[in-house]
Amino acid sequence: MFERDLFTTDRLYCPGPTPVPSDVSHAGTQTSMYHRSDDFYKVFRRCADRLAPIFGTANPPLILTSSGTGAMESVLVNLTDVGDEVVVVNGGKFGERWEKLAKAYRCDATVVAVEAGHAPTAEQILDAVARQRQTKAIFLQANETSTGAYYSIETLVPQLRQKFSGLIIVDAISSLCAHAMRMDEWQIDAVVAGSQKGFGLPPGLSFVALSDRAWGQLSSRPRFYFDLLRERKGQADGRSAWTPASTLVLSLDVALHKMLEAGLDHVLEHHATLATATQAAVKALGLELFAATAPSRSLTSITVPQDLDGQRLIKRIRQRFAMYVAGGQDELKGKIIRFAHLGFVSRFDILDGIAALEFALREEGHRFDCGVGVKAAMQSLVLV
Amino acid sequence: MFERDLFTTDRLYCPGPTPVPSDVSHAGTQTSMYHRSDDFYKVFRRCADRLAPIFGTANPPLILTSSGTGAMESVLVNLTDVGDEVVVVNGGKFGERWEKLAKAYRCDATVVAVEAGHAPTAEQILDAVARQRQTKAIFLQANETSTGAYYSIETLVPQLRQKFSGLIIVDAISSLCAHAMRMDEWQIDAVVAGSQKGFGLPPGLSFVALSDRAWGQLSSRPRFYFDLLRERKGQADGRSAWTPASTLVLSLDVALHKMLEAGLDHVLEHHATLATATQAAVKALGLELFAATAPSRSLTSITVPQDLDGQRLIKRIRQRFAMYVAGGQDELKGKIIRFAHLGFVSRFDILDGIAALEFALREEGHRFDCGVGVKAAMQSLVLV
Repeated sequence: MFERDLFTTDRLYCPGPTPVPSDVSHAGTQTSMYHRSDDFYKVFRRCADRLAPIFGTANPPLILTSSGTGAMESVLVNLTDVGDEVVVVNGGKFGERWEKLAKAYRCDATVVAVEAGHAPTAEQILDAVARQRQTKAIFLQANETSTGAYYSIETLVPQLRQKFSGLIIVDAISSLCAHAMRMDEWQIDAVVAGSQKGFGLPPGLSFVALSDRAWGQLSSRPRFYFDLLRERKGQADGRSAWTPASTLVLSLDVALHKMLEAGLDHVLEHHATLATATQAAVKALGLELFAATAPSRSLTSITVPQDLDGQRLIKRIRQRFAMYVAGGQDELKGKIIRFAHLGFVSRFDILDGIAALEFALREEGHRFDCGVGVKAAMQSLVLV
Repeated sequence: MFERDLFTTDRLYCPGPTPVPSDVSHAGTQTSMYHRSDDFYKVFRRCADRLAPIFGTANPPLILTSSGTGAMESVLVNLTDVGDEVVVVNGGKFGERWEKLAKAYRCDATVVAVEAGHAPTAEQILDAVARQRQTKAIFLQANETSTGAYYSIETLVPQLRQKFSGLIIVDAISSLCAHAMRMDEWQIDAVVAGSQKGFGLPPGLSFVALSDRAWGQLSSRPRFYFDLLRERKGQADGRSAWTPASTLVLSLDVALHKMLEAGLDHVLEHHATLATATQAAVKALGLELFAATAPSRSLTSITVPQDLDGQRLIKRIRQRFAMYVAGGQDELKGKIIRFAHLGFVSRFDILDGIAALEFALREEGHRFDCGVGVKAAMQSLVLV
């Protein structure tokens, strides 16, 4: 029996939180910086400016102290009124979140149900739009984190735009930094993201970018903490409306610097390399990709073979190797595992995660030639 | 071409310094602890007590602020006088260091030359003793770091003891924590070690343990910084004679706690597992172990194939993967590489290092089925 490694520390292979590089982490230990000081305003302002190219927008994104769900809510609250017709794409847990938000705030929502592991087509979405009188907004994900399906928004959104001129709102929480985002070019009106995903920070910050058109269509709903216009005014000078998670902002500054220094194109390509290698390993192990037609570059979802218990497998990986791989949620519980390669993750991190998966699969009775997955990943890395 | 990984940080695979765990490292950031305070004395004292079982002695080792060479010098200075006859085993760079020290301090040294990569036999050493009138001390290594040969002192020293009653002095700098040490049981009179090896600390501290017999045979040489008797008196109360590297002592406290909590036997076994897996990988890659008859559990020395340039190979591993594997020294330069698995190193660390070695070998033109080394290591880990 392979005992839990003596000198292993916890490692994150779930689709957020992702590993935090030591310099990013250390920056967050500067607990004495006051958030109402010129020094801090400067850092805050710089973060917003550095976020802009990652969102592909000329309007610097807003930095909120909330989880990604808070950012989703802020967008829905600031851009829709009670009774507004909206179309919501639901291809998993996070599409369902848009749906729940829309219902909580009494929008008139038409839901596009997408089979788990698949991406929606423009036709499906436009059909839903056609069933409404006047659709205010379409809400969707760039990447459905719960299934590992990427929605190819670089082609999907332009297809929607041929027939739809309302607001298009994208939850890019788990796609940013792994998949390209050009919200201005693709005419997306709102993009939300979170610190603990591609940005390699702990959880606590979220980011929201709106198009000029969205800023021109603000709702009349009551709001306070998530009043985006108020944030925009203050953040132009680096002043958030409410107390920000200041140490996370200091970490963000370092993380963004690292990413832009490496080059955004390089970062995107790196994620593609990691995804390809992981997919090669999965196939070599005789397993199937759950999101085979739309695999994400942020995470690889793997179908657990019928004769294995997915929850046990994940528990074993955690107990033996201190690695946190995610499972499926709700009806996918025990049926898939989700292996992330998002953020500040190296090629060697991926090899380690695959090795742990192999050891655990073996102990759970899956038969294969041990090492064949890592070998396939290595050969993929050499070829890339 | 496999570019240097975007998000890779420097990693140590050289036989010291070894990786420092984050909690050990963080303990060393407590820069405000005064070294002349009761709190510090308590920590210092606890460290000495925790070192004792690792040395296998009832006499708590002394903690010096110096490199390992300083500790070697302290032992030679405190235990020999000018003109004393000593036998020095020279099987590489560190045996040579005993020789140089003995000569610098004008001992009458007889050198036992051991072929690089091999271990000395008791017969060779006793032959040298037989050529002297009265041998004061035998100086040797437990592990010759420069060649990766382990001297099996658990059998060698008892063999020597059958015919030799003088002092036996062992440099265990790179063997402690990886190989067992029972200095009282094996009747070893002095053991020296260093912080940046099996203890997982940065460099700066060294440790010296003397037997009761050694304490009874102190020399009359002049000495000051390395006056071990003076240290013994003060350190009984946690007070070092001179200003200690206090933050390293704070780190040491955490490292020793981790190690003893895991269990010393478990730590030793872990190193054996890592060494076996690394050796399996080397063979699978069609390479040869340099210290084939006496492989160390601290590091694996690998013979570089004739058609490859070992220095280029090491440079490539550094440049591409930010991993610091060591090369050969002096006449072994370019001919061997030394891959350490010492200290707070996990099984996954080893797989990563082997993967990097494979990628680099491939780029340098060595032909093999990429991934076969890591696969062999994984299979070895599963079998262990």
